[in-house]
Amino acid sequence: MKTIRFEDNKVIIIDQRRLPAEFRELVCADMDTLYTAIKELAVRGAPLLGVAGAYGILMASKQADCSDKDELIAELVKAGEYIKSSRPTAVNLAWAIDRVLNKAKGADNSDEVKKLIEAEAMEIADEDFNLCEDIGRHGAAIINDGDVILTHCNAGALATAGIGTALAPLYVAKRNGVRFKVYADETRPLLQGARLTAWELLHSGIDVTLICDNMAASLMRRGIVTKVITGADRIAVNGDVANKIGTYSVAVCAKYHNIPFYIAAPYSTFDKDCADGGDIPIEIRDGNELRFFNGKLIAPKNVSVYNPAFDVTPAELISGYITENGIIRKDDIKNFQGVK
Amino acid sequence: MKTIRFEDNKVIIIDQRRLPAEFRELVCADMDTLYTAIKELAVRGAPLLGVAGAYGILMASKQADCSDKDELIAELVKAGEYIKSSRPTAVNLAWAIDRVLNKAKGADNSDEVKKLIEAEAMEIADEDFNLCEDIGRHGAAIINDGDVILTHCNAGALATAGIGTALAPLYVAKRNGVRFKVYADETRPLLQGARLTAWELLHSGIDVTLICDNMAASLMRRGIVTKVITGADRIAVNGDVANKIGTYSVAVCAKYHNIPFYIAAPYSTFDKDCADGGDIPIEIRDGNELRFFNGKLIAPKNVSVYNPAFDVTPAELISGYITENGIIRKDDIKNFQGVK
Repeated sequence: MKTIRFEDNKVIIIDQRRLPAEFRELVCADMDTLYTAIKELAVRGAPLLGVAGAYGILMASKQADCSDKDELIAELVKAGEYIKSSRPTAVNLAWAIDRVLNKAKGADNSDEVKKLIEAEAMEIADEDFNLCEDIGRHGAAIINDGDVILTHCNAGALATAGIGTALAPLYVAKRNGVRFKVYADETRPLLQGARLTAWELLHSGIDVTLICDNMAASLMRRGIVTKVITGADRIAVNGDVANKIGTYSVAVCAKYHNIPFYIAAPYSTFDKDCADGGDIPIEIRDGNELRFFNGKLIAPKNVSVYNPAFDVTPAELISGYITENGIIRKDDIKNFQGVK
Repeated sequence: MKTIRFEDNKVIIIDQRRLPAEFRELVCADMDTLYTAIKELAVRGAPLLGVAGAYGILMASKQADCSDKDELIAELVKAGEYIKSSRPTAVNLAWAIDRVLNKAKGADNSDEVKKLIEAEAMEIADEDFNLCEDIGRHGAAIINDGDVILTHCNAGALATAGIGTALAPLYVAKRNGVRFKVYADETRPLLQGARLTAWELLHSGIDVTLICDNMAASLMRRGIVTKVITGADRIAVNGDVANKIGTYSVAVCAKYHNIPFYIAAPYSTFDKDCADGGDIPIEIRDGNELRFFNGKLIAPKNVSVYNPAFDVTPAELISGYITENGIIRKDDIKNFQGVK
């Protein structure tokens, strides 16, 4: 499975709007198609959006019919603004587009502009690909024959140009011939586990079973789960982790049953400006995400709802942090100073 | 709120098919309407179905135009068979109908048949009503001003002819003027918490907030939840409890945060034939309950699913058992022998 490719001057993505019902690739042969694909979440996930943006500029440069360097750059900057406007809040999308364009500005002529853009776009994709591979390699070291891994939410291949972050260790272990099973929490309210994690693991031939979030503890009690791996949205200097709501519940239950609980995330997730989890702001989302499902009312229309997007898992519940630079063990996190 | 009434020779119920979107009563003025109401789950919940069945026989006896005792009884037995066939597996429905009819068989004439049936049907409703009140009265003793109660699933008024079992303490505390708040787990996969608990508490003026099951632990961490009360499907002699899936997860998290965890259930839920939780069989339900929502695929069609209906919470996580005969404290459960 390749979530994004640049082939024949086209950007080819997996159309995530159709998942999990249908696997279909979407060929973006022009900027309007790519714009719509990003806007309508056919392609999503911060790292993947960065690569999509970079490939978008690459496609624009291939299609540009213009031999003047400054004119070409002006045209590409305009293309970049257009693509950025498809999701104005996507930091990684804007970052990657700017990175590619900035590189081009050092060129002497239009041919060199095109060469530099191609090299930089490919570099961005490669960096993301390699980051995932490195997390996967380090994480695979803790997955053994017979392991049963529980995971929550989705920080998988579908969000990156590679094999994902939190799920990367599973893909590498599978590639290495390790025999293990996975339980995927469906992850209410937005069901990323059911829609994305279950789909991508199944599609990759990994033995995955879907459960409701509230079933994980009873699997642990029966001795079925041997390890937990989840992603992280932000990691404080003391090792506290903000991640998708429900992560903390899994961590508490893992602790109670003496099951190792690992975070797998890029090194850049450590935020040196956060001393501890208390510094991490928690986004509270619209209550209608719980009141409605596909437009159907599933709760009283006027009931109060508490719908935090994330929770904070304290460092004492975490066995280790799997990063592209290796695994930071529980006991080493105290001496860690963060990177961002 | 009255979930069931017998008025003007009619059985009047809350049409639970319309919940939580709309509150409407359904007047069953003939046996066919009552039959359909039971079959289509407009009325559900074991105790409430018993009362509905008894009231059904009462309605049939009121409408019967027949002065011969044996003919009348034959007619009512036929009516009973008809109502029972609306939900053949509903043990309580058949039990209540048979109880009313058996009483009638001792009558000397058709007038006495009708009198005995009326008395017995009302007795069944009263017994259920009083059972709920007694659980509520004992349970209310643990609810204080400022308490924030977390509950899971629904063993509420909507399942009984009274104020429910697990939720009864909340109704009595409210009636007593105690100021408290409730968080209701939505209770995946069938969402009884969102559809039923949230609705009935809101309808009764109780301050209720709906959450996803995976949010409870983070509320506990923030010190927001002060007590947990859930129902029970079956309680073993050693105090282990089988209840709706997710109960165990709540109990583990409550223990971790030192929050008292109570079970509220009728005394008859204790099963002397179960030595411990290991003796309680766990129903595994259809995986499509997780794969689909309202007919829409929300997970890969062919993904494996684990969908247990219940889990077992061990006695060591339970602070007490609220029954109609009082609260059995954690330390007393060891000497308890079960009742059924």
